[in-house]
Amino acid sequence: MTALAMSEKSQADLEEGTTCAPRFDANGLITAVVTDAKSGELLMVAHMNREALDKTIASGEAWYYSRSRKALWKKGETSGHVQRVVEMRVDCDQDAIWLKVEQQGAGACHTGRRSCFYRAVPLGKSGAVTLEFCGEKIFNPAKVYK
Amino acid sequence: MTALAMSEKSQADLEEGTTCAPRFDANGLITAVVTDAKSGELLMVAHMNREALDKTIASGEAWYYSRSRKALWKKGETSGHVQRVVEMRVDCDQDAIWLKVEQQGAGACHTGRRSCFYRAVPLGKSGAVTLEFCGEKIFNPAKVYK
Repeated sequence: MTALAMSEKSQADLEEGTTCAPRFDANGLITAVVTDAKSGELLMVAHMNREALDKTIASGEAWYYSRSRKALWKKGETSGHVQRVVEMRVDCDQDAIWLKVEQQGAGACHTGRRSCFYRAVPLGKSGAVTLEFCGEKIFNPAKVYK
Repeated sequence: MTALAMSEKSQADLEEGTTCAPRFDANGLITAVVTDAKSGELLMVAHMNREALDKTIASGEAWYYSRSRKALWKKGETSGHVQRVVEMRVDCDQDAIWLKVEQQGAGACHTGRRSCFYRAVPLGKSGAVTLEFCGEKIFNPAKVYK
């Protein structure tokens, strides 16, 4: 089998196969997109290493890897804002994971909001862009993250 | 101002400010999460460089950067499956972008499906995991990508 044929076979397996073969990046991480299972709202984008992915699959609760703290991290371990995973999907080339979750507690964002995506970027402009707030604070992070 | 105070100020600006200051990674890229503006379905995850982001903001149509082809890329330039951006948001630490789009044409995925996330990862298991298909092919990619 030529290298090209091998490569094409691998791509077909990756995209049309049933083997879960997540492609972690050079830092051993994969992107996780987290939406609210009921409303569909995008709550956050985070990263998982192999261990975080395995723990999430096994437990049905979301685990991530914090790039800033360089540590495995269970969502809600400090705040109590645990995410119960209702459904997990993988994308075509298996370098991204989609979690549909039931968000326990007030919200997913450490700033005190339901979603991390609380600012809109106006469209149709060039040059400097001013963000527009569209998500309210619903809890006090100083009280939740001690 | 100490380094710590500066760092805290920067984080506050990043998270609570109105200045759009996207944080591109070491490769000059930022993650873009793309959902269907009507159904809320997660369509795809892609990457943008500075130019793709600027073109998307200015034109209201989605541009990305292909890591495999190492090239700027307008979604739909080959397939006709253009994405009209209805709303754009940025997350708390400004390293991810959320696009709510009207997907023109049949679908967003190059495999011929509406969404790239057409396989589910079963939960509650440990060890090898078998993916379950949950998204149908709705167009023939060989005819669309010529």
